[in-house]
Amino acid sequence: MLFRAIQIQVRCMSSRSKVGFIGLGNMGGPMALNLVRKGHPVVVYDVFPESMTQLTDEGAIMVHHPAEVAEKADRIITMLPTSAHVKEVYQGEQGVFKSAKTGSLLIDCSTIEPDVSFNLSEEALKKGCVFLDAPVSGGTVGAKAGTLTFMVGGPENEYESAKPLLQDMGKNVVYCGKAGSGQAAKICNNMLLAISMIGTAETMNLGLRLGLDPKLLAGILNTSTGRCWSSEVYNPVPGILPNVPSSNNYEGGFGTALMTKDLGLAQTAATTTGTTIPLGSLAHQLYRLMVTRGLGKKDFSAIYAFLQEMENAK
Amino acid sequence: MLFRAIQIQVRCMSSRSKVGFIGLGNMGGPMALNLVRKGHPVVVYDVFPESMTQLTDEGAIMVHHPAEVAEKADRIITMLPTSAHVKEVYQGEQGVFKSAKTGSLLIDCSTIEPDVSFNLSEEALKKGCVFLDAPVSGGTVGAKAGTLTFMVGGPENEYESAKPLLQDMGKNVVYCGKAGSGQAAKICNNMLLAISMIGTAETMNLGLRLGLDPKLLAGILNTSTGRCWSSEVYNPVPGILPNVPSSNNYEGGFGTALMTKDLGLAQTAATTTGTTIPLGSLAHQLYRLMVTRGLGKKDFSAIYAFLQEMENAK
Repeated sequence: MLFRAIQIQVRCMSSRSKVGFIGLGNMGGPMALNLVRKGHPVVVYDVFPESMTQLTDEGAIMVHHPAEVAEKADRIITMLPTSAHVKEVYQGEQGVFKSAKTGSLLIDCSTIEPDVSFNLSEEALKKGCVFLDAPVSGGTVGAKAGTLTFMVGGPENEYESAKPLLQDMGKNVVYCGKAGSGQAAKICNNMLLAISMIGTAETMNLGLRLGLDPKLLAGILNTSTGRCWSSEVYNPVPGILPNVPSSNNYEGGFGTALMTKDLGLAQTAATTTGTTIPLGSLAHQLYRLMVTRGLGKKDFSAIYAFLQEMENAK
Repeated sequence: MLFRAIQIQVRCMSSRSKVGFIGLGNMGGPMALNLVRKGHPVVVYDVFPESMTQLTDEGAIMVHHPAEVAEKADRIITMLPTSAHVKEVYQGEQGVFKSAKTGSLLIDCSTIEPDVSFNLSEEALKKGCVFLDAPVSGGTVGAKAGTLTFMVGGPENEYESAKPLLQDMGKNVVYCGKAGSGQAAKICNNMLLAISMIGTAETMNLGLRLGLDPKLLAGILNTSTGRCWSSEVYNPVPGILPNVPSSNNYEGGFGTALMTKDLGLAQTAATTTGTTIPLGSLAHQLYRLMVTRGLGKKDFSAIYAFLQEMENAK
């Protein structure tokens, strides 16, 4: 334990040592770019070489597989689409674990199953490394602006070590508890978000059909017990709030396909832990239906329009 | 129109004229008592004579049927359990409409179907009277303390006339629009409240089973996009907040049976108007199930314990 503590101290003191970054898509790309622009020497890898062009143009070093990232850097960030991708990047033939140095700090910012995060943290520990789960909220806009929120699971002292690096890509870094807790917090928040968004959409729609003025109804809800973030800050009815996706044809914002993915993770977590989530399950199915109907790229507040469309189709 | 305006002016100027009050249960009783104690001469009627004892002891005049209330008072408040009771009190053999004086102000504080409120307002108009729907939130605690919120539907100038009287029983008086709008606003708010309460219960339960600390999870939700009144002010997990029903074995607060009733009104309104309310419907069924299981008198936040009980029963 003392041995590990010393190693970690060495790793963390060299705050300008190389940082590895694997997965440079819509989120990872701008996150890595923020690190480069803040002066970190960054080693990058992505399965699509073209996604690394801007980064290498700005000074990042490109390598050929995750194991090579781990050879060159002892602080590594991963940002990948699914649990399967994360497992491949860490445990694959040319994965991070093949060459990770003792004491390496491995930070996975992907949103994946909490169980997968937990298992990877156990495997990392056996290899003398530290694995943190640190999924984000804030979307591509937050990734570009460096205003993401990170929800971090793992040993608390390692969270403290990771914090300065995460703060170079985001605004808030929240400690959530043991390994997997970052994932747990994120999928819990997004499940409640989905439920309250659909609830707000149903409620606003019902009120309008009962003859209530939408702005007046929103005002009543927001000063009453029905209030929630979706009614106050992100109302799904066009024209109530400016600068939200509902007032811009549901473009931008948080895509329905991504919300559907997060609800799928909540569903899996609920099944694994034997938890009853009746509204969470129905929310999942409704967003899945929107994806089926070709609305996966629309902001998730488009559920308001979708519920109306279903009726218009009668 | 001018004729009616003059009549109303006459009625409203005599602010210490008799006020009629019909329906003196857990809500109506303390509301009427507040009027008596604020110096209004009050004429009372209830089907259960014993519910009038305290009021007559403090100076209220007891009569024998709703029509007699309408003979003696030209401002009448009704507070009754269901649409059927309200119809009987206004339209019955010895109902208010039998003897209501021209220009009378009839204020129904019951929570009933918006359609019934609307139809009664039409009938009142034909008889030269004004009918306002003014359902309340705040429960029996608010009724006793005189801190209720009234949501008022009907002509806006009549809302202004009713306001001083309602302010003698409550803290907030909100204008919601045309006849029936008070009911519409109340059932919309309560539907969203039910959905976000169940959503919060599911989310907290899932988080706990994933190993998150409940206070930490509540803190994360309340500073994130999942936040809602139920997570912030009325968290259903025992021990997170003091002085809420969840920290007092789900006693007091807003009864599950009453929430079930309001969700039934939302369901009827949605059916009547052809509105899709998938989560509202499921919330209704879950609360109905709690009533079936003998939990109708528990606060509606007991859904948290109920969802756990179901699992424990496996």
